[in-house]
Amino acid sequence: MGLILSFMFELLFQKFDEKVALSSEEKALCKTFFQSKKLRRKQYLLQEGDPCKYVSFVEKGILRSYTIDEKGLEHIIQFAFEGWWISDQYSFLTGEPSFYTIDALEDCELLLLSRDAEEEMLEKVPKMERFFRILLQNSLIAMQRRIISSLSRSAEEKYQELVVSCPTIPQRVPQHMMASYLGITPETLSRIRKQISERKAGR
Amino acid sequence: MGLILSFMFELLFQKFDEKVALSSEEKALCKTFFQSKKLRRKQYLLQEGDPCKYVSFVEKGILRSYTIDEKGLEHIIQFAFEGWWISDQYSFLTGEPSFYTIDALEDCELLLLSRDAEEEMLEKVPKMERFFRILLQNSLIAMQRRIISSLSRSAEEKYQELVVSCPTIPQRVPQHMMASYLGITPETLSRIRKQISERKAGR
Repeated sequence: MGLILSFMFELLFQKFDEKVALSSEEKALCKTFFQSKKLRRKQYLLQEGDPCKYVSFVEKGILRSYTIDEKGLEHIIQFAFEGWWISDQYSFLTGEPSFYTIDALEDCELLLLSRDAEEEMLEKVPKMERFFRILLQNSLIAMQRRIISSLSRSAEEKYQELVVSCPTIPQRVPQHMMASYLGITPETLSRIRKQISERKAGR
Repeated sequence: MGLILSFMFELLFQKFDEKVALSSEEKALCKTFFQSKKLRRKQYLLQEGDPCKYVSFVEKGILRSYTIDEKGLEHIIQFAFEGWWISDQYSFLTGEPSFYTIDALEDCELLLLSRDAEEEMLEKVPKMERFFRILLQNSLIAMQRRIISSLSRSAEEKYQELVVSCPTIPQRVPQHMMASYLGITPETLSRIRKQISERKAGR
């Protein structure tokens, strides 16, 4: 955990401003509850079985959360890009061992909030209850969409939705990880991408 | 929308008490923001394409939310039993047309909260920001679990998880609806249930 410089909060405060009106005193107070952390590519933020002690805001980079099944296969739950939050909410709230592993797909700069720090921030800056309530509402909507997709969309439609939600994802995330997120094989994803590019080329 | 009698709030206040400490004045104030609604079995609470004007708390009965794909197949997103909430959060928050239909699987008694009523309640009883934040956190955890299951669990494991989460579901929800929720065919579910009962019988 390092010294936090003011510019590291730029994106976080931009996200706060979109949802709640904080005074400059409240912002200064909020800053004190976060810790900064840098991760290099492939480093772990959380390993399955450890308690998830922080919710992490991504200032820079990409992370993923995933679980490994009994056959050793990885299943990606979420990608988190700049401006997103990532955690195992269940483990964070209960202190139980995490179901996920979270690691960095690029070098990352994060702002971390512990459970105690969150509770204290919510007590001292009650407007943040509203911020987190809205944030959770939005996450829930995204999850509902994902469940609808997994039940009713074809693999190609699911891929197209993913790219619409994060247009830089094909450049920044390896193909086998996108396939894992979509619940399809890398070969199926490769065929889908070929079909899309052929259609675009008008063949 | 009918007259609301005090006993109709029993379950709701029990849920409030589990998460926040409200004074009796705050509870009395909260009551004024809800409307009551009764639905008979098969009646709609929300039809796809209409805006979702309320979040609904289930005092009695079961509802389901579902979407119908281009082939006319139903995909069940959620069941809501006594003590649960149901809505299309996206539509409720944005006023956009709903993606889901919500209907009653049994005769239901509901308490409805409109967007304006929710905003006014949050303003006058700020502790309710905390209640809804925690409620959303729990919904998010349930959704994360569901996504992990859909990616990594076998059909039988998914069925067993559903029954653990709502033990009365096999008695109260038709088999084809459970199959739709699990993303499997009714025939597959029927085979799974037969295998489980044969194993229980020690064959």
